[in-house]
Formats: sequence, C-alpha cells, structure tokens
Amino acid sequence: MLVFQNPSQDREVTFMAIRKLLIANRGEIAVRIARACSELGVRSVAIYSEADEYSLHVKKADESYQISKDPLSGYLNPHHIVNLAVETGCDALHPGYGFLSENAELAAICKDRGITFVGPSSEAIASMGDKTQARQTALAAGVPVTPGSEGNLEDVEDAVAQAADIGYPVMLKATSGGGGRGIRRCDNEKELRQNYERVISEATKAFGSAEVFLEKCIIEPRHIEVQILADSHGNVVHLYERDCSIQRRNQKLIELAPSPQLEESQREYIGDLAKRVAKQCGYVNAGTVEFLLDHDGSFYFMEMNTRVQVEHTITEEITGVDIIKAQIRIAAGEPLGLKQEDISYRGFAAQFRINAEDPKNGFLPSFGRISRYYSAGGPGVRTDANMYTGYEIPPYYDSMCAKLIVWAMDWPELIARSRRALGDMGIYGVQTTIPYYKQILEHPDFQGADFNTGFVERNPQLLEYSSKTRPESIATAIAAAIAAQAGL
Amino acid sequence: MLVFQNPSQDREVTFMAIRKLLIANRGEIAVRIARACSELGVRSVAIYSEADEYSLHVKKADESYQISKDPLSGYLNPHHIVNLAVETGCDALHPGYGFLSENAELAAICKDRGITFVGPSSEAIASMGDKTQARQTALAAGVPVTPGSEGNLEDVEDAVAQAADIGYPVMLKATSGGGGRGIRRCDNEKELRQNYERVISEATKAFGSAEVFLEKCIIEPRHIEVQILADSHGNVVHLYERDCSIQRRNQKLIELAPSPQLEESQREYIGDLAKRVAKQCGYVNAGTVEFLLDHDGSFYFMEMNTRVQVEHTITEEITGVDIIKAQIRIAAGEPLGLKQEDISYRGFAAQFRINAEDPKNGFLPSFGRISRYYSAGGPGVRTDANMYTGYEIPPYYDSMCAKLIVWAMDWPELIARSRRALGDMGIYGVQTTIPYYKQILEHPDFQGADFNTGFVERNPQLLEYSSKTRPESIATAIAAAIAAQAGL
Repeated sequence: MLVFQNPSQDREVTFMAIRKLLIANRGEIAVRIARACSELGVRSVAIYSEADEYSLHVKKADESYQISKDPLSGYLNPHHIVNLAVETGCDALHPGYGFLSENAELAAICKDRGITFVGPSSEAIASMGDKTQARQTALAAGVPVTPGSEGNLEDVEDAVAQAADIGYPVMLKATSGGGGRGIRRCDNEKELRQNYERVISEATKAFGSAEVFLEKCIIEPRHIEVQILADSHGNVVHLYERDCSIQRRNQKLIELAPSPQLEESQREYIGDLAKRVAKQCGYVNAGTVEFLLDHDGSFYFMEMNTRVQVEHTITEEITGVDIIKAQIRIAAGEPLGLKQEDISYRGFAAQFRINAEDPKNGFLPSFGRISRYYSAGGPGVRTDANMYTGYEIPPYYDSMCAKLIVWAMDWPELIARSRRALGDMGIYGVQTTIPYYKQILEHPDFQGADFNTGFVERNPQLLEYSSKTRPESIATAIAAAIAAQAGL
Repeated sequence: MLVFQNPSQDREVTFMAIRKLLIANRGEIAVRIARACSELGVRSVAIYSEADEYSLHVKKADESYQISKDPLSGYLNPHHIVNLAVETGCDALHPGYGFLSENAELAAICKDRGITFVGPSSEAIASMGDKTQARQTALAAGVPVTPGSEGNLEDVEDAVAQAADIGYPVMLKATSGGGGRGIRRCDNEKELRQNYERVISEATKAFGSAEVFLEKCIIEPRHIEVQILADSHGNVVHLYERDCSIQRRNQKLIELAPSPQLEESQREYIGDLAKRVAKQCGYVNAGTVEFLLDHDGSFYFMEMNTRVQVEHTITEEITGVDIIKAQIRIAAGEPLGLKQEDISYRGFAAQFRINAEDPKNGFLPSFGRISRYYSAGGPGVRTDANMYTGYEIPPYYDSMCAKLIVWAMDWPELIARSRRALGDMGIYGVQTTIPYYKQILEHPDFQGADFNTGFVERNPQLLEYSSKTRPESIATAIAAAIAAQAGL
C-alpha cells in the first residue's frame, strides 16, 4: 500500500474495513487525524469541549459533537467517548497522543463495544505502561536496559539498598509514569529519602499507582527514539530514528530525523533493537521505542510509547510514509505492504514545537487571541497547526498550538531553511517559542550536531534575545478590519 | 553542495560570490527567490509598483524599493532595474519568470554593468527565443523536432507550398513567440491564408518581430518537459520530467512530476535528449526543454525555456533539489556538486495553480480583497503564495496568486491527498480555480493517468459544479473583527 506504484499498472484494490472514525482528541493531532481520514475516504467525527468550539479540528472533521461543557472531562472519559462512537455509527476510534492514548481501559472498552481501536491491544498498552514490565520485555528480547532495581521497590529502605548497588546518581521513577512526570533525580541517599514519598505521592495522583523503581541516572544522555510499524500479520518494520535531545525539563522542544549525531551502523543497530522489542511483546500498530545514548556510545532501552507521537511528522518527511494513515490501515487489518528494504530515508527533517509560551518569562503559558497569523511556506516547509487569524487559544490545554516541520537535503541546509521558515511564520497576539528556537539554531554545538539533553539547561544565555513583541498598531488593525468589511 | 552529507564529517566551505541580489519580479516567485536568498545568506532587494505596496514579496525581502507609480513599466524597464541594482549595491539579479526573464537585453545590460545575471547568457536566451534557431540547435544535437518549414517563411505563398509538403493541420507560429501567444492552428489552405497576416500582426505587436514559421500540428499531444541544471564547469544534469498536459488555451493549470503517463525507459530517453540540447548550445543555469509526446509514442522538441518555470516546485518535491538556490549558486560560479547518478526521484507531486478566476464564468479574473485566507497544511502539502487575510489582489497582473503543491508516495495517494489539500485551502472574497480542480481530480481519465492537452476542452461538463461562493456572513466577520480588536 505504501510502495511506489506506476498508475498505468493494475493496482490491487484494498478493502477499507473502517468507514467512520471517532477522533478522541483535540487540537493539531485531531486535525492531523481528520486529514488522514479524508485521504482514506473514512468519515471523521470530532469531539470538543465548550472551550474548543472554534478549534480547527471541529471544522476539519466531517461531523463534530460537543462532549462536555467543561474543558477536560469529556476528553478524559473513555466510557462517554466510546458511547458516542457507537451512537454516531463509528466503527473505529483514534486516540491521538496525550489524554487517553495510553489508557489500556479505553482500548478494552472499544474492543467490548465492537469499535476498532487504532492502536495496540489493551494488553500491550498495559504491559508497556508498566515501566518495570517494559524493562523485563526489553531484557527478554536481548535489548540493553539502563542498570536499575529489580522490579518495583518495596519501601524506602529497599530503595536505599538498591541505590547503593546501582551507584548514584539514580532516577526514581513511577512505574506507571510517562511524559516526563513522576521522575526525580537523586544524587545521594539523603535526596533519595527526601524524594521517595514525593514521587509516590505524585504517581498516585497522576497515574493512580504508588509503584516506583530505580534506574541509574545517565548524565546528559542523548534521547534517541525509533519509530516502528507492526501489522496484524506479523510484519514489523522500523522507520529510522528521531533525535529528541533538545528538551527542557523532559519536554521535547525540537526533534530531528534522522539523528545528525549517529553513524549509519548505530542507526541500523537501534533499528534492529526496536523491532526486537516490538516482536517480543507481539506489538501491533505504530509505536516508538525510546533509547538513551550514553557518552560511551551505549544505547539503553528507556520505554516504549504505544501511540503516535507529536514528532511523528519528521519521520514522515524523511521516509515519505504517512504514519497516521498506516495506523488506520493496520487497524483495519491490512498488511503493511512494505518490507524493511523498501524503506529508505532522504535528507534531514526538524520539528519545532510552536508553543504559546514566553521563553524569557520561564516559558510561562501565553494564551489568548491570535490577532494575525501568517503561515510559513515555500520548499521543505510543512505546518501542522491549530491556529488561524482570530483564533483564541484556550488556557486549559497544552500550550503547543502549531508544529513547524522543515525538511532539507543536508544538515547545513536544514539549519538555513529552519532559520528562514521560523522567520516566515508570523504569530501576533501571543508570545511563542519561535525567537528562542532561532537562538538555538545559531549555537555552534547545535550547528555542529553535538548536543545532548543537557543543552537547554547548559545554555541559559540563549534566552537573552531582544523581545520584540511585534504588536500590530491598533490603527493598522482597525484599517484592515474595515477594509475586510468593505471587501465582503 | 546538494548531496547528502553527514554533518559530523568535515564539510567543504563554499564561497558565496553573491552577497546581495535584486529580485526583478513580483508576487509569489519574488517571495520564492527572497526565501532562497535568505537560506543562502544573500541579502535580497525587492522592487514594487505602487499597486504592489502590500504584496508579500515586499515584506519578505531584506530591502524594497518602489520602482514605478504605474503597475507595469517598472517591472518591464531593464535599464531602470539594473540601475537600481547598481545603486543599491547588488552584485546579482534574478529575473524570475515572465516580465523580463527571457529578455536577452536584460542579461546583456547586467553583464555590461557588472551584475551577475541569474540565468543563461544573453546569447543563449536569444538563440532559444528564436524558435527556428532553437529547432536548428535541437536538430544539430540529434533531437527530433516536429516536422515543419525550413526556417522562417518568406510569404503566404511560401507558407502554402510548405504546408502542402508537411500536411494539414499545421501550426503557424511566431518565431519570437512564447507563452502560448502568436500561435494559430490551420486545418487547410484557406485557414492558413486567413491566419497568415493575423499571426504576423500579433507577432509584430507582442514580440517586435514579423517572422513566422510552420510546424505540423500534433493533435492533442501530451506536454512533457524536462528540467535541466548546467553549471559553468561543463556539468549538465536533468531532474526528470514534468507533465503539463492539463492546460486551457495553452495555459497550464495542473502540473505533475514525474509524468504518470511515461515508462521508465521513456523517462531516461527524454532526460538524455534534454541534456543534449543544453550541451549543444553551451547552456548554463536552470532551463527547461519542452517536448510534445504524440499518440504513437514519438517525442518532438518544442522549445527550451531559458528561465525558471512556475512549475519548478514539483521537481523540487520529487528530487529534493532546491532549484532557485541551485540557480544562484551556479550564477556564483559554483560547480553543481552532483552527478546524474546522485539524482533520484521519489513519489509524485502535483502543482495546482490557484488563480483568482471564476471558472464558471469563462475563467474571468476575479480580483479583489481576500477577506479570509486559510492555508492548507499537513503531510505532503507545500504552499507558495502571495496571499494573506486582508490582501487585495491588484487587477494589473497575472491572476495566479498561489501555488498549492502536493507530494505523495504513489499516484492514488497523490489524488487523495490533493483532494484533501484543495479542501483544506480556504480563500474567501474572490473566486478561484480550486472547485474546478476538485472536479478534474474526480475524472476517470485523470485518475487513470490517461490525459493529453485536449483534456480540458474535451470535458466542459467539469465546469458544472455548484458554485458555493462561501461568503462569510457579515455578522460573523464583524464579530471576528471586534474580537480581534479586543485581543490587541
């Protein structure tokens, strides 16, 4: 299905078992899924809170339903969402990322109600959501994991004893954690004792589980992750890796594909490791196997994300494979139709998460109305945005309101084009991370492809840029508004 | 320079001999050139007429100068433009397409004044601009040309005598013509006699030359053109072909790369022919060799365009090569840095010319104010536009105000994605060709990749769509305007 085919040849017609799909998400990923549905001829159904009435995903889907008055409960109630899917005649549901995307219960409810869940089985979600179980799976597949505790910790004394064996610093992690939450670094026994109850408390609140474990703290590793696709016929392929080392407090800011820091042999090695993890747990659908790359060149399995990721876009750019459409086709039971040797990558891609935040003010969210929005364009530029002139970014959700994706033939061109594309994009009315990214692009370590997860913290001077707020004058805006009226 | 390079390896630093470049054009191609300059670190200078004060190209360039009060004279005066280039300290000039781009005098003046012309020599422009001379060049290179008269015609009796040898129908063409003007089809002697004086009159007015010649009329051929790049060190490569058969009255509407109608062997064959033409005339810079493909599979050289083309974008999409940047580097004296075997293509790309026209009303231009503009986005979608919310399209220029470029892995995906992307794009306030293109996409001959230059004329029923003008309600617009004010 994904392979180049000459249209003059007969083409096998594939049967699309999915006719109508509910998008259990909001914002840009809901827009992305609606676009994929449109291309597949699948009817899409959006859900939205009252605050999201003017979100672009409501306009892009074929049907849309308000699921809650309040901003969050509708997006977080699996029973309610699956009920709506059944009532509206959907035969499938795509969870996107965040919200319920790694909630095994949602997948299970879908199965019970005869709705095809676009993602892995609830068992696979649960098994990879449990971080100690995930480590066991990786080990069983012969994939190296970070040295750490044997399973979950019994109590703080167990933690202290095991930490002594592992060696400080250690990471104390919630077994059900994810997305950078429920994690604390402990440099010595005192810190471990201090953090123990805190992490348990956080984990209980955020994930409903008090289980924690220890891992050796790899200091300033590189974050390398491999995209895989697995179908229900036993085919597993990888789509190369992404480098997500440019992070702030465990939140990714800029992602790159492929990693400019890897040799070809390392690329093949981790691609193979990722496939082994997927095969070991009988994984089906798209998934991401995350690794830490230590300074000595060692790769350690970190976790597997059992959903599509924010940064799937850059893998699409370098391989040409539409990952969301592949997810839906896999869920519909289609075979992948491509082997590992059919997949190649070309050039480099970067994704910049355009967050409505003020970097100079501790990355404080900067929600509000977009008074003017000018999209970037030209060669190698893709935008996945939930934004338009006049849109008001609601304050209840993630501050990421657009993704700017740049492709180029080589690394120097990627930097030059990214600089240009970030300059192209015009967002007025709120602060964004754009000026900060422009600063990062000029750093010699970034340009030289030599950076790790410590880059952002190590370079606070990158926040010292002149903060042009670029407000449009009221007079200009009024003139434009009047002229727009006259033109109707 | 264009080849994939691992950033960890040492990279030869190329010296950019061009520091500042004047863009002798307007609209989307001027935006495109400004973006290329930005990526190369070349300072860009825009020129604009009074009517173009709010054109996006004025904003995208580093400097801009009003070159005329009236809409056209400034863009058409080579002396004036080159003077400005010299006065503003430019060392190069890019002519874009249209206007003076195939004016040999402009290239000559640039040379005289020490400005690097981003294009071929004035001699190459002149020799390819003279259609009978271009035919001789092709013949000398062993490239087949359409059967036709031996050079220019002496008088109407010479025309009648030669037409009898060639066989009707024949095309009577202005030797200096181009862009679909100065051409008439004659089905018999009577029509030839009727058209003879008309074409001479048209040619004299439009091109300042009364010379005409005859060619056999290939009925409903396919229009196939090959992109070439040639540097000043003798390297010539082709970047595969484009299929521009979807035309209306010799004006291209939708272009495709590669042609879905060719076999791989045909692709190699015409790529080779195009390179031979370029080598024969010592061509340097980007150029396009146009062929007609007859129903029996014969290719005939038609003409060579000695400039960048509107549809260069789709070649960039499938090969990854930035053609505008390549033009500037070649003009700066850099070697291509890539051999034919380094160039590959992936997938299919389509360009839709978004014209401000009303297809249902004879494609009448529909200039005016864009009350709202929503750009398309997501995977495989690129926009090269001269448009934004509030922009007023001036009535003096070409009606093309945006190019929607779509890339996909295979032909069926290209159709599905194009349908989706055309639906994504929202332009309010003027009529556009978007709904017409949606109709074309649904035609079985288009979907089956079986069409020629007669497609548009043969299918007038494609204009029978419901003309939703999609005007926004005044109330909605006012509410949005007020809200936008409040948000400032």
